Amino acid sequence: MDYYSKQISDLIASLSMLPGIGEKTAQRLAFHILSMPIDQVEKLSGSIISARKNVRYCKVCATLTDQDICPICSNPKRDHSTIMVVEDTRDLAAYEKTGEYHGVYHVLHGAISPMQGIGPDDIKLKELMTRLSSEQVNEVIIATNASLEGETTAMYISRLIKPTGIKVSRIASGVPVGGDLEYIDEVTLLRALEGRKEL
Amino acid sequence: MDYYSKQISDLIASLSMLPGIGEKTAQRLAFHILSMPIDQVEKLSGSIISARKNVRYCKVCATLTDQDICPICSNPKRDHSTIMVVEDTRDLAAYEKTGEYHGVYHVLHGAISPMQGIGPDDIKLKELMTRLSSEQVNEVIIATNASLEGETTAMYISRLIKPTGIKVSRIASGVPVGGDLEYIDEVTLLRALEGRKEL
Repeated sequence: MDYYSKQISDLIASLSMLPGIGEKTAQRLAFHILSMPIDQVEKLSGSIISARKNVRYCKVCATLTDQDICPICSNPKRDHSTIMVVEDTRDLAAYEKTGEYHGVYHVLHGAISPMQGIGPDDIKLKELMTRLSSEQVNEVIIATNASLEGETTAMYISRLIKPTGIKVSRIASGVPVGGDLEYIDEVTLLRALEGRKEL
Repeated sequence: MDYYSKQISDLIASLSMLPGIGEKTAQRLAFHILSMPIDQVEKLSGSIISARKNVRYCKVCATLTDQDICPICSNPKRDHSTIMVVEDTRDLAAYEKTGEYHGVYHVLHGAISPMQGIGPDDIKLKELMTRLSSEQVNEVIIATNASLEGETTAMYISRLIKPTGIKVSRIASGVPVGGDLEYIDEVTLLRALEGRKEL
């Protein structure tokens, strides 16, 4: 890429290492950055490095946060006896956006996937079990993804927890709200049928 | 976005100001950045700020570069008597990638667009005319885009230059190589017909 000067080439190369950003998009972003006011560029560059440097796992639920204990775990108004287990911080955010869940979370940072060589020890499962033995917990809601890995992880966790006597539940699988039956896959349709509720 | 800690929210907000990056993509990029090795993140952050701080216009051709005079303008092997006029640095790069053009360039940084209020004084046209009067130039090849703005700019420039006696040409418009006539718009087909060459 010697048709660009070194600084521009370096910027394009760095940007194109991000997921979903190919060389053309990286070029477009780079030239946009070059035309941005310097204070905005400083803010962008600063927020990248400071987020990476300061963000760590919450000591309780393992979500990504910039404090030792995240705002949810340190909030006394939350129901600390209900723990929702999610695969990553984005899934936590997805449930927080509903505004209707008042319990706390546990973030696994992955799901068990024998195909990808990710076993139970590679996700924050030990931390969950330690938490269950030391805190007063009534229910564990497993909200891993409805993928093969998510289901495997849910099964594995429920088998681990059941002997402790704590209630374990799994979020429902079925037709999404607004979904048109015609376009829904068979497995989802069967799940929706199995999970039917009396009206 | 208080479901993310401040540092993460700031990062997502900064990223989503980039063109073509919505909130979901910004989230995905942010969490990828948080999982990247710290030295790569430092490189990304550093390249953003240093490119923005050090890149300026080449004093001859106005392309974006990190030197006073860009590598193309300072290369004695290039044909300095042929100037290709392009809209921006990316267009210059596109022609450089062909490896077959050996002249130099002039970058306008835009095109005349009365609709968007961009007039001849808002692009680097004065700089081009100064260059033509002080350098020994044989031909000016106008390679602005084949859009309405690009064509307007090409017409305007050719009228400015013609009185000086310097040869002015315009890159050909027609069916792109590999193009299927069936899917080409009518204007392009007419241009291809008008620009036909004897075999």
